[in-house]
Amino acid sequence: MHNPQLNKHGELQHLLTIDGLPKSIVNHILDTASSFVSVSDREVKKVPLMRGKSVFNLFFENSTRTRTTFEIASKRLSADVINLNIAASSTSKGESLLDTIDNLAAMHADMFVVRHATSGAPFLIAKHLNDTKQHHVHVVNAGDGRHAHPTQGLLDMYTIRHYKKDFTNLTVAIVGDVLHSRVARSDIHALTTLGVPEVRVIGPRTLLPGGLEQMGVRVFTDMNEGLKGVDVIIMLRLQNERMSGALLPSAQEYFKSYGLTPERLALAHPDAIVMHPGPMNRGVEIDSAVADGPQAVILSQVTFGIAVRMAVMSIVAGNSGSDA
Amino acid sequence: MHNPQLNKHGELQHLLTIDGLPKSIVNHILDTASSFVSVSDREVKKVPLMRGKSVFNLFFENSTRTRTTFEIASKRLSADVINLNIAASSTSKGESLLDTIDNLAAMHADMFVVRHATSGAPFLIAKHLNDTKQHHVHVVNAGDGRHAHPTQGLLDMYTIRHYKKDFTNLTVAIVGDVLHSRVARSDIHALTTLGVPEVRVIGPRTLLPGGLEQMGVRVFTDMNEGLKGVDVIIMLRLQNERMSGALLPSAQEYFKSYGLTPERLALAHPDAIVMHPGPMNRGVEIDSAVADGPQAVILSQVTFGIAVRMAVMSIVAGNSGSDA
Amino acid sequence: MHNPQLNKHGELQHLLTIDGLPKSIVNHILDTASSFVSVSDREVKKVPLMRGKSVFNLFFENSTRTRTTFEIASKRLSADVINLNIAASSTSKGESLLDTIDNLAAMHADMFVVRHATSGAPFLIAKHLNDTKQHHVHVVNAGDGRHAHPTQGLLDMYTIRHYKKDFTNLTVAIVGDVLHSRVARSDIHALTTLGVPEVRVIGPRTLLPGGLEQMGVRVFTDMNEGLKGVDVIIMLRLQNERMSGALLPSAQEYFKSYGLTPERLALAHPDAIVMHPGPMNRGVEIDSAVADGPQAVILSQVTFGIAVRMAVMSIVAGNSGSDA
Repeated sequence: MHNPQLNKHGELQHLLTIDGLPKSIVNHILDTASSFVSVSDREVKKVPLMRGKSVFNLFFENSTRTRTTFEIASKRLSADVINLNIAASSTSKGESLLDTIDNLAAMHADMFVVRHATSGAPFLIAKHLNDTKQHHVHVVNAGDGRHAHPTQGLLDMYTIRHYKKDFTNLTVAIVGDVLHSRVARSDIHALTTLGVPEVRVIGPRTLLPGGLEQMGVRVFTDMNEGLKGVDVIIMLRLQNERMSGALLPSAQEYFKSYGLTPERLALAHPDAIVMHPGPMNRGVEIDSAVADGPQAVILSQVTFGIAVRMAVMSIVAGNSGSDA
Repeated sequence: MHNPQLNKHGELQHLLTIDGLPKSIVNHILDTASSFVSVSDREVKKVPLMRGKSVFNLFFENSTRTRTTFEIASKRLSADVINLNIAASSTSKGESLLDTIDNLAAMHADMFVVRHATSGAPFLIAKHLNDTKQHHVHVVNAGDGRHAHPTQGLLDMYTIRHYKKDFTNLTVAIVGDVLHSRVARSDIHALTTLGVPEVRVIGPRTLLPGGLEQMGVRVFTDMNEGLKGVDVIIMLRLQNERMSGALLPSAQEYFKSYGLTPERLALAHPDAIVMHPGPMNRGVEIDSAVADGPQAVILSQVTFGIAVRMAVMSIVAGNSGSDA
Repeated sequence: MHNPQLNKHGELQHLLTIDGLPKSIVNHILDTASSFVSVSDREVKKVPLMRGKSVFNLFFENSTRTRTTFEIASKRLSADVINLNIAASSTSKGESLLDTIDNLAAMHADMFVVRHATSGAPFLIAKHLNDTKQHHVHVVNAGDGRHAHPTQGLLDMYTIRHYKKDFTNLTVAIVGDVLHSRVARSDIHALTTLGVPEVRVIGPRTLLPGGLEQMGVRVFTDMNEGLKGVDVIIMLRLQNERMSGALLPSAQEYFKSYGLTPERLALAHPDAIVMHPGPMNRGVEIDSAVADGPQAVILSQVTFGIAVRMAVMSIVAGNSGSDA
């Protein structure tokens, strides 16, 4: 499927994935976010960039945390926000996804922030809006199945840039359940785009997808090996449902092999930063001493995440659709 | 019960039903809505008409779609919106409906948008507010039981006026489950008020209520007969729970007899428009070729619905209560 | 635990409990609320005191009524409000309470309005924010376990002051299930602080906690005795789950002994006012003739409650944290 996130001038009209996004656009998002970081520190934390615009949070899958960050970002841009938990609504009345989308677009929505358990759903929606020439509506992917979570990837890049300045001399390790992680996929694409020379992935064989080497990634199953000398460690959340069963023996066993402890962290570069998309499982993938320690930048990720989402929303809202 | 929706000057202080509403008020609502249609197209889609007013969406029955349209309309009027899903709240603590209403009115609510499974509930609330001289609070009926759904009726009239200009030379057919439809009742009242010379109702005997002829309506059980030469076709949604059981053999059988196909649509006037209150059951009451075809104005209904709700809300908010 | 609600200048930076709150601060809240009562009567019911501030309603326990009053108060102060029903969110993913708090604080929250089934939860949150020097975030307790409901206590004081002017010559009776009532605890503290010379508690032995006499309270198990000559009657709600079982024979028996009827009300001072925190159980703790009678000020409590919450929120938002 042709990537429908760019309009014919090559501008970002939807944000669906980091895969294939030009470096110049990634940098433009990060630069714009930088200007919004200070907004959140001001007494009045609002800018009028999206005043009178209607943002619909379409959450077909529940995620209070992600919904909240987009709701805050929208309000700080002065947009009107409508939260729709779609699982509980029209689709239960047998209406199709695209009929729901057409209906909301007809209410003069300006933006859909879409979270869906099915990979590709935001693509499908954006493609439909383009095909039916509903160019006034923009789509932002807030996580689709195992596919992508581009704003998480972008806020991770913002965080790395903030602490490390230059991407072109870094070694970055992504640790954990890469197989089921849309965060990992988005991060790998972004790191590659930004010129990181060495991206490593660390995890048990059962939680690593095939094809990683073809993406230019070095694969480690031994965590001590993989952490050696890295500048950035991105820990992934271990989903509760993986903690026992076919893929893993138990949470305790996992922590023994892949939990980030102070001892293991000492193998990385002394200035290495530790990231986590949250919510953390303390004692499963990360030790509390690390999570609360001086190298963790996990709460900074949250703060930067608001600014990055404000940047993405204001940029796509400003770029007209394919035919314009 | 005396109709409590007009104040002693004959102005609309609540909107409860279209039944008995003077033609001049209906036209005033449609004219006002017309001025709001352009607001939704503007860059900043807001007018300050209800700035600082508190609108409470009191949904005793779940309806995400209708709640969303009122929430958008409120925000475009610059009102503050409070969404209350009442089923899950005070009434479960044993508080009576009218105690809940008094409590919310004491918080200086300006408007209650009420959806209730029981016919007459918005009447009861409006009457109570009038009787207890709480004249600062206005009620808008967002659908009560099988009784009325007046804003849907009004947006249907707006849509017909937009496409057909003059009501006084039209033949309008309402097709489907009239028995259980508050939309049908509201539409019949509105069409009659606006001078439509011929209103037809088409459906199986089991889904038609008695007394239609006395309302001045022509009844057809043969859809091909009923559609002949009509200018406007209003399809009704077939509720899932009717699709099998005592009243109907099956959804497939229903479609065979009463589904709107391109062949059947060809029996109507060549310029006939097709309307549907949504959400549609494609392949049950309507064929996709019709739903997505050039004669369908279903998404326009949605767009006009926001403007009509803005009109109703701003009009009733501006008219003081009975004693004023 | 040191009371963390005052900063080192003795100013209110969080509102956690009325217990130990200086009389000057209580009076400052009531005076400030007085200025907001008129705001709710104005055409535009908003003041810009918290414009651009982000208020998070963190309801770990469902309470639509209380949540609504804080949401309205926030919006009338022009704040942005984010409603989080936490039970259904992160904590179900195994994240700890304090991790959730740190995350939301990192989004540049300005205020947490906290409702929790566990006594002390808001204290824990405020202490953690102070300890970790996250001084930009303020906590308002919206009810914790059986412990405290300070804004309810303060709105009760506002109501008494409105109708009785002077606290120092009053006899006040609190009637009902004192054992399980956080409202009763908050009221007793507030009345004592404001110099009420005689506070009485009336109820069956099984619903009265120990230690009341040490709080300076007179205890009555005979309602007729307890009501004699009182100026203010605060009725408590009887929770449904107490109405039958070990603690009480039945709702009917309870009404016979402790229901407030017109006959019993006649034993109080002729100008006595009747209060209730709502929602009322008519026919259980209060007779409808009293609830709707001229001495009831129950709906005024609701109205004053909005102004009191606006006062608390604007005061704590204006006072910087412990180290400032």
